[in-house]
Amino acid sequence: MKQLQVMIEGSGRHIHMTKECLEALFGAGYELEARKYLSQPGEFASNSKVDVVGPKGVIKGMTILGPCRKFTQIELSFTDARTLGINPPIRESGNIEGSAPVTLVGPAGTVDLKEGAIVAKRHLHITCKDAEEYGIQDKEIIQIKVGGERALIFDEVVARVSDNYATAVHLDYDEVNAAALFGDNAVGIILK
Amino acid sequence: MKQLQVMIEGSGRHIHMTKECLEALFGAGYELEARKYLSQPGEFASNSKVDVVGPKGVIKGMTILGPCRKFTQIELSFTDARTLGINPPIRESGNIEGSAPVTLVGPAGTVDLKEGAIVAKRHLHITCKDAEEYGIQDKEIIQIKVGGERALIFDEVVARVSDNYATAVHLDYDEVNAAALFGDNAVGIILK
Repeated sequence: MKQLQVMIEGSGRHIHMTKECLEALFGAGYELEARKYLSQPGEFASNSKVDVVGPKGVIKGMTILGPCRKFTQIELSFTDARTLGINPPIRESGNIEGSAPVTLVGPAGTVDLKEGAIVAKRHLHITCKDAEEYGIQDKEIIQIKVGGERALIFDEVVARVSDNYATAVHLDYDEVNAAALFGDNAVGIILK
Repeated sequence: MKQLQVMIEGSGRHIHMTKECLEALFGAGYELEARKYLSQPGEFASNSKVDVVGPKGVIKGMTILGPCRKFTQIELSFTDARTLGINPPIRESGNIEGSAPVTLVGPAGTVDLKEGAIVAKRHLHITCKDAEEYGIQDKEIIQIKVGGERALIFDEVVARVSDNYATAVHLDYDEVNAAALFGDNAVGIILK
C-alpha cells in the first residue's frame, strides 16, 4: 500500500461574491485590493470585509476573497452557522443551489441573499503528477489519517485533481480543532 | 467482529469548582441550585454562571456544574480556547496539573487560576454490563466510527467503565461539528 503524506491547511470563514454584490455593499465602481495572495493562482484575500447577519446573530468583518466570481458564496463552519442561527448544507464550492440565506451588510448597502451560505465539504487538492503516482481520480472520495492526541481518520474527503494547487487537504476550523491539527501535527496520510 | 452502536452526546463548555472558589466569586455562604440534572447521578447544571477571561478575550456566562468538587476545572473546546487566547492541554477530567491559566469573574469577586482550563479528551462512558459483553476494559483506547456526510473514525477515545453512566460517547462541539453529528446522525459504532 502506497502512503502519501500530505499537508493539512485550515480554511477560515470567507466570502466570494459577484461584482454586482460588491458594488451594492461598497458603492459603484468599487474594486477589491489584494492583501495576501493565496495558493491558487490569482486568488487573494482582500482588504475588504463585510458583516454577515443571520436570524440569531452577526459575524462582523468577514474577509472577502478576490477576484469577483459569477456567484456569491459564504463558506462557514458549523460553529459560525450556530452563531448566525442558520443551517447550511455541506457542499463543494460553487454548488450553492438551495443553500442557506443570510444578509450581507457593507458600508454602502445591504444585500439579502436567498441562498449562498455553505459548509465546505472537506477536500484534497492534488497535482496531476501526485494523482497519477498514487492512482487518485478527480472527484474520488478518499480517506485521510491523522495522528496525535486527537488521532482520527477523515472519510468523505473529495479529491480535486488540478495543477492549479499544491497537494494539500483543506479543512475548516471545526475539523482542524477536532483533530488538534496545530503546528507540526498538521499532516495526514492518504489511505488508498 | 462485534459491533456496538452507541449514542453520541455533545458536551458544551462548563466549569466545575471548589466551594472556596464559588464563595470568592458569589459571596460567603453561596450555594449552587440545580437547573437541570445530568446523566451522572447527583450532577447538575446550576443556575449560576461566571465570566471566563483570557489574555485575548472573554466568554461570558459559562455554566457552573454542581455539586462543588475538590478542584476547579474549566472544560473548553479549542474554538473557545482561541477566543480566550489560551492553549489548554487535552486531558481527562480531574487531571489539571499544569493546565492553562484563566481568570473567573463573578458578581462578588474575581479568581485568578494558575491552572484549570483543559480540552476534554474524548471518551466513552460504558456500563459494566456493556463493557463485559464487548470486552472493553476501563481506560482502554477504542475507536468510534460515525457515518453521514462527514463520516470519520475517531481514534484515541478513552473508555470509562462505570454503572454511574449510561453507555454514550462524549465529544466537544468542535468534534460534533467536524463530524456533523446532529439529530439522527448522533450515533457511532465501537470498533474492536
